[in-house]
Amino acid sequence: MNLWSILERAARSHPRKLAASEGEEHLTYAELRERCLRLAAGLRAAGVARADRLAVLEPNSLAYLELYWAAAALGAILVPLNTRLGPRELSGILRHSGARALVAHGSFAGVLGDVIESGAAVDLLIWTRERPATFARAGLDLADLLQHPAGEFRAEELAESEIAQLYYTSGTTGEPKGVMLTHGNVTWHALGARAEFKLADSDVWIHVAPMFHLADAWASFAIAWAGGTQVFSPRFDEAAVLDAFARHGVTLTNLVPTMLLRLIDFDGAAAREYPSLRMILSGGAPIAPAVVRRIIETFRCEYVQTYGMTETSPFLTLSLLKSHLLLAAPQVQFAYRAKTGRAFATVELEVIGEDGQPVAPDGVAVGEIRARGHTVTPGYWNDPAASARAFAEGWLCTGDLATIDSEGYLQIVDRKKDMIISGGEKIYSTEVESVLYAHGAVAECAVYGVADPLWGERVEAAVVVRAGAPADADALLLHARQHLAGFKVPRRIRFVAELPKTGTGKISKRELRDRSALGQ
Amino acid sequence: MNLWSILERAARSHPRKLAASEGEEHLTYAELRERCLRLAAGLRAAGVARADRLAVLEPNSLAYLELYWAAAALGAILVPLNTRLGPRELSGILRHSGARALVAHGSFAGVLGDVIESGAAVDLLIWTRERPATFARAGLDLADLLQHPAGEFRAEELAESEIAQLYYTSGTTGEPKGVMLTHGNVTWHALGARAEFKLADSDVWIHVAPMFHLADAWASFAIAWAGGTQVFSPRFDEAAVLDAFARHGVTLTNLVPTMLLRLIDFDGAAAREYPSLRMILSGGAPIAPAVVRRIIETFRCEYVQTYGMTETSPFLTLSLLKSHLLLAAPQVQFAYRAKTGRAFATVELEVIGEDGQPVAPDGVAVGEIRARGHTVTPGYWNDPAASARAFAEGWLCTGDLATIDSEGYLQIVDRKKDMIISGGEKIYSTEVESVLYAHGAVAECAVYGVADPLWGERVEAAVVVRAGAPADADALLLHARQHLAGFKVPRRIRFVAELPKTGTGKISKRELRDRSALGQ
Repeated sequence: MNLWSILERAARSHPRKLAASEGEEHLTYAELRERCLRLAAGLRAAGVARADRLAVLEPNSLAYLELYWAAAALGAILVPLNTRLGPRELSGILRHSGARALVAHGSFAGVLGDVIESGAAVDLLIWTRERPATFARAGLDLADLLQHPAGEFRAEELAESEIAQLYYTSGTTGEPKGVMLTHGNVTWHALGARAEFKLADSDVWIHVAPMFHLADAWASFAIAWAGGTQVFSPRFDEAAVLDAFARHGVTLTNLVPTMLLRLIDFDGAAAREYPSLRMILSGGAPIAPAVVRRIIETFRCEYVQTYGMTETSPFLTLSLLKSHLLLAAPQVQFAYRAKTGRAFATVELEVIGEDGQPVAPDGVAVGEIRARGHTVTPGYWNDPAASARAFAEGWLCTGDLATIDSEGYLQIVDRKKDMIISGGEKIYSTEVESVLYAHGAVAECAVYGVADPLWGERVEAAVVVRAGAPADADALLLHARQHLAGFKVPRRIRFVAELPKTGTGKISKRELRDRSALGQ
Repeated sequence: MNLWSILERAARSHPRKLAASEGEEHLTYAELRERCLRLAAGLRAAGVARADRLAVLEPNSLAYLELYWAAAALGAILVPLNTRLGPRELSGILRHSGARALVAHGSFAGVLGDVIESGAAVDLLIWTRERPATFARAGLDLADLLQHPAGEFRAEELAESEIAQLYYTSGTTGEPKGVMLTHGNVTWHALGARAEFKLADSDVWIHVAPMFHLADAWASFAIAWAGGTQVFSPRFDEAAVLDAFARHGVTLTNLVPTMLLRLIDFDGAAAREYPSLRMILSGGAPIAPAVVRRIIETFRCEYVQTYGMTETSPFLTLSLLKSHLLLAAPQVQFAYRAKTGRAFATVELEVIGEDGQPVAPDGVAVGEIRARGHTVTPGYWNDPAASARAFAEGWLCTGDLATIDSEGYLQIVDRKKDMIISGGEKIYSTEVESVLYAHGAVAECAVYGVADPLWGERVEAAVVVRAGAPADADALLLHARQHLAGFKVPRRIRFVAELPKTGTGKISKRELRDRSALGQ
């Protein structure tokens, strides 16, 4: 099976079902399939061939969804680009991936001008919308490609081992790394997600989190396979998203933590009705049981904490509750829903201690998570050294440290590289962050180690306070001392207006450490 | 992934969850895994190695489930034997598969005595229970193998393309044919089934239909993957099955049509409570909307008509309703639930007309169903000629004729070889049978063609009447004439006490034709 065959099946099983809506555009599966075939035919006519890299710089949109499918029909490799990247990073990725074509939205004209000036070779430029005046004569319009007759076009017969997508990770150092995902990886993941989330043709997914990232993109395939409907949120706006929930009858979605926090803090969010909503997913940052409770009380639906990596298509764990936990007291349920979660259907996970053996499932012993299975990447594009480093004995080493409890639920305690060692004691930043989050004044925080001549490292915290709350370091430190051993209490609290984030919205502890070292 | 890794995952994710119950034996997933490893270690010590064929002749039981898993851990190929076969067929299968070992229940001592007398070589005989006196010194006891320490045993690392099971089809002619199913086939099917039936750890499956047949065996793997529970019904008895539904909190099961009809006819069945039951599956024979209605009114749960083949692991279609059909009038719902169904998640289906093109999805045009995908067999064991005949252009030709409607639901009208051509007109036996079934006196019927010097073939029907109903051919023919074109009306109705069936419970039209030809 390949990715395209998912849309073929949906079009055969659900020809007249609403597949996707954007503004006044409402496409059935038969229509979506037809449009994607026309687009694929148009791209082929423009010179894009099987195995060519097709880079995309585009906000969440129907066009994005169609590009995912059209690339699959062509056998081209989609390279979704992070829309927050600057010209230097974009040039690097276009060069490293050897992109044959770049599809972009006109709003990126500025950054693309700089990319092209920097000498990055882009043979073929295609504008999805709003072709900018500065590029009046350069490139093609996606709308024209969509006019291509699909009649003669036949989707490529692709092996599962062929690459479907290249996702460049938001690493802050060195050369860009392109995670290769095969057609096998993404189709297995889609079927696993159908099983885990019990997806059905009645489901409506809204793409709020960026479609260039797998945390959202996986749903494009899984929802289609189930015959569900997809709608799009091109930029995040609380009122617009909540309105869209109601207007489209959204049943489930994934939100990055910042979005989710902004939504539950949004005025009147809890007073609205969400009759269709059944599940909200989030991940990428730890979450406190109290926050899970607020999400559930706001939206009156299930909350699932997710954990994964681009390298694993992406899910590794989900905090879906086992049936017997659904009978537990609410506090217990909130606590389990706030955990990193138990293994996703299509991966095998182990938590390996320093002795190379699985740690005891006691919720205390810490080890590194490793994974293998059908949804694990074969490696990095044109980077055998990085690929070799990522694996040990056939297992992908995640670099994440976690405990595992007797129910099989993991709890990440830290990134291996973010673990702090102070005076010979290991300190997991997540534990300290959880304590800080439990304080009412803390909106967002990050705990990290900075070099210390005496202790090796010392603990520091950066904190964003809630609107209207005081930036009172003494109160926070007192709170921390009440809940943590002395050596884990931050030596210093830095109040900041916002935390530095990577392109995909993860807090950059590296930058916090750098700033601290520079005394900023 | 291979089959064994499913149980490994379940044991890791649900170690203390009830995996299987039989009598006083209640095993958690950790215990089931441990037992299966001990059994695998014992089998290896007894001489069973990777890729060896391990034949099993056993009623539904916990031992059967453990043998499925132990074979997978060893990399041995399980050969489930139909418990209704005679010594000649059993000898043929043991010889054709080259079975290294035979595991059998003591109640089959009689037939096995004849098998061994016939000269079939069985190196290794293992008794699950009730070792018969006649075999006092021959063979081993499964209970002893289960005592083997699992400590040192390591499950084999198997490729997806390796054979997990060989199922011998109940063909009535020629040499036995062994359908090879790979580890990839059965794991994909298990995940597809999880997605389709929304299986969860709260599910409880009862093995009522025979575990030697894939119509039931697939659930062994899918239910375990979801962390559900399995219980066993060694022989069919209405009261015992209904009691088991209540005692174990059964949530779903598969029943062969005869069992299902006997259950809904059973005294007091509709008056019982079935609070846990959520879904009943059946297949292998067409069903009338009126019968679907009776099933739903008896059990107050969902009914799913299934269609599949051993060659496809087994599901090809399910009559699960799309969400918009759940809003339709009850009669429409019964009609859709009685259809053959729409494509199962892991297969691609086409209905191909005589011109080699897909037929129009109008519910009228008839073509042959063909299938391809991850759950389709690579072919028949040691039978390249049969394997080649089964496929055309990479598609498995099912030999079943069907229509497909605008919703993508198939309706089988006949086996290709059972279609009757009379006076140049095509007659699909299923259409005629449906009309007969709508008559209140008909309990079971089969329509088939017999050679006719004038018309080529003429239509005949064999009918079993309901208890107490008259065997009135004129009344039935009048009824048929009211609902069918003249050339489709049976020329003759034969009343029989029961219809001849194959080992797997399918009506043998071949035998009906033969009897008719012989004037019996």
